[in-house]
Formats: sequence, C-alpha cells, structure tokens
Amino acid sequence: MTIEARLKAIEDRLALQDLLNAYCTAVDKLSDVDGLLSIFTDDAVFDLRDIHLPYAKGQAEIRAFFTPVFEMMSNHAHYWGNFKLDRLEGDEASISAYVTGMGIAKDGNSVTVYVHYFLDCVRTAQGWKISKFYETARMPLPKSLTEIHGDR
Amino acid sequence: MTIEARLKAIEDRLALQDLLNAYCTAVDKLSDVDGLLSIFTDDAVFDLRDIHLPYAKGQAEIRAFFTPVFEMMSNHAHYWGNFKLDRLEGDEASISAYVTGMGIAKDGNSVTVYVHYFLDCVRTAQGWKISKFYETARMPLPKSLTEIHGDR
Amino acid sequence: MTIEARLKAIEDRLALQDLLNAYCTAVDKLSDVDGLLSIFTDDAVFDLRDIHLPYAKGQAEIRAFFTPVFEMMSNHAHYWGNFKLDRLEGDEASISAYVTGMGIAKDGNSVTVYVHYFLDCVRTAQGWKISKFYETARMPLPKSLTEIHGDR
Repeated sequence: MTIEARLKAIEDRLALQDLLNAYCTAVDKLSDVDGLLSIFTDDAVFDLRDIHLPYAKGQAEIRAFFTPVFEMMSNHAHYWGNFKLDRLEGDEASISAYVTGMGIAKDGNSVTVYVHYFLDCVRTAQGWKISKFYETARMPLPKSLTEIHGDR
Repeated sequence: MTIEARLKAIEDRLALQDLLNAYCTAVDKLSDVDGLLSIFTDDAVFDLRDIHLPYAKGQAEIRAFFTPVFEMMSNHAHYWGNFKLDRLEGDEASISAYVTGMGIAKDGNSVTVYVHYFLDCVRTAQGWKISKFYETARMPLPKSLTEIHGDR
Repeated sequence: MTIEARLKAIEDRLALQDLLNAYCTAVDKLSDVDGLLSIFTDDAVFDLRDIHLPYAKGQAEIRAFFTPVFEMMSNHAHYWGNFKLDRLEGDEASISAYVTGMGIAKDGNSVTVYVHYFLDCVRTAQGWKISKFYETARMPLPKSLTEIHGDR
C-alpha cells in the first residue's frame, strides 16, 4: 500500500471510533435528538430486536424511539470499548464494539446492560454516518430494560 | 494537509490518549505522587468541585490533595474510555473521556463513580502535560465519595 | 524518524490493540478454542498465578485450561481499556491494559474481576501473537473466581 493509502486507513479507523463515540455521547446527552439523528443516514436501520426492544427504519422512526426515551430518563452513560474495524472498503465500513449502557429513569427505575454493537457505516460529504445499527446482549439482560424502554 | 501534518495529528491524538492513561494509572498506583505530578504543568488547575471535591491550583496544592488520598486508599482502578479529541491547535489540546473510578479505603469504605473528564493539555519539552483538569458526574454520585475524599 | 518508520509504529500499535481485542473476544465466544489458540505462539506462557489460577506453558496446556472453562460458562464478557504500549522494538512488543472480566457459569455462579493484563507479543508471518500472558488484580478478587476457574 502507498503511504497515502496507509495513512487514510488509519484516519478512517479513528474517524469510525469518533462516530461510535458520537453516538454514545449523543445518547447520553438526553437533550438533542437532532444531534443524534445527524450521525445516521436518512434511511438508517436501527435494530434493537435482539435485546427485545424496537426496530426502526429511517430518521422519523428513530426519532420516535429516542424522543420519549430522552424525556423519561434522568441519566444515561454508554461506555464503549473493544472496538473492532471489521471491514473497510472505500466508502463503506463495518465496526463492532462492546458497550456498557447505564440508565436511570425519572421514576427511579435503573438499568445496566452489557451489549455488543454492530454498525454499518458509510462515508458522506459530512463524514462517516451510521447506516445500520444492530446490537446483541453479551450478558443476560435485566428485566428493567423492557420496563424502561420496551413499551413502545 | 501534508503527509507530515496528518501523521503528526495522529501521533498527537495517541500521545494525548497516553497522557490520560498515565494520569489514571498514576492515580491507581497509590505510591508515587511525584510521578503523578510530573504529568501536570507547574501551575495546573485541578478542579473537582463539580463532584463536590476540592479545587487545587499548582503542584503543591495538587500534592496536598493526593498525598492523604494515597495514604488512606488500599485499591484504586480508574478505567477510561470514550476518548474524544475536542481541540488540537499547535501545542494546545483539549480532550475528554468517560471514566469509571473505583476505590477501596483502608477503613473498608468503597466508592465507584461514573464521571466525565475534561483536560486541557499543552505540549512541553517533556511531552504533553495537563494544564487543567475538570470533571463532571455522568451518573449520580455515591455518598461514600465525599466520606472518603471530601473532608479536606 | 522517517515517515515510513512513524507510520509503521502507529500501525503496530493499532495491530497490538487488535491482538488484545482478539484475545478478549475469543475468550468471550466460548466456542472456539482453536481460534483462541491461534493468537498465541506455540510455546506461549499463560500465567494466572497472581490471581490464584493456573499457569500453562504451550498450546496444549493453554487448551487444557480453556476447554473446561468454555464448557462450564454460559456467558463471558471481557472489556479491555487503558491500553499502553510499554515497549516496541522491531518484532517484539510489550503491552498492558486494564480489563473488566465478567462471567456467568452454567451452575448459576457468577464472577467479575478488575485486572491488569501484561502481554509480551511477537510479530510472526501471521501477524502479532502473544508469547507471554500475565495478569494481576487491580481490585480485590471475589471468592467465586477460584470456585469457577480454580479447581484444575
């Protein structure tokens, strides 16, 4: 590979880490759905069915999932780790990461999940965006997860 | 950007991650205040007021905070993640990260906090150092935090 | 350093992070001991004595440790963080990282450890591999650790 290609591969890897980080911190901010949506493509798939939560396709449906979540939660903290660049081909990439997701609802309920994120990403004029978001459980899920997020 | 500038930007990002890591591991070592202080600038600000702990300015005051902490704790573990390079301009940078901080005091008390670090950093002849350290809580703080660290 | 040498140093650092990640995700997969062993050198040392678990030398002994572990566990999740490149000299490297290791056994027992990994690594024709694996505890170890993994 040329110097240029090797440098670009590293920059893309770091940019994809930044994208994952932007998702986690936007989810934790609990106040800016538009900011969160800006890192998804228009027709992005957001699929939480494997952890017994909704499936959404497109920005309107993703907004409909997060708007009540942001209203009902008082604290969110999503720590990502174990980043892996599974695929990088031109303007497309697939990444995965482990996430510890913690939340406290305004009604006092709380939840902690240990999950595995799988993201398909595309390079756009505004940088890398998420085109498909999928997650599985790495550890058994607590009942409070569906109590808090599942009744939609 | 030139190849040189792009390479330097990546090296700086990794060096700033190493600086954050050096802070966490020095705090966890519990035995070398000098080593910990060596990664702060002489007039560094260390501000924990947002989590109800002290504010210190300069190496002497930071030493005065950590010396009794190192004496009273039997275990420390500060895991950092969600690194973000918020700003990089020449010899100045701002970074942020989520941290899970765990501690056990010799008297048996224990504490776990989920916090958000914000560091201003400057490039020196000895590498990057912390000029300002600030943190906020990402999840509610336990009472044991001020029991352990707050009575100074 | 030349551009080539600086680029190679970054690529090696990221490849060593990938190696650590490969170890953690292979341990968590609980179903492919061969895949896990493929990231160790033939004569690798795997030393868990500091956390009161076995010492193994060579692929056969490492296999003998993990085979029953994979059989008895229903869930594993090993989150790594605080990566440090302690040494990089040609085809040899030493890295360290903090790990949160969680497990649930099929008999219902569960374990969480906060540990510090130290890996010696060598570059091979198949990429970086682990030649020595050593870990220490960062926080007190739970009794369930030896109940689950220690009776071998």
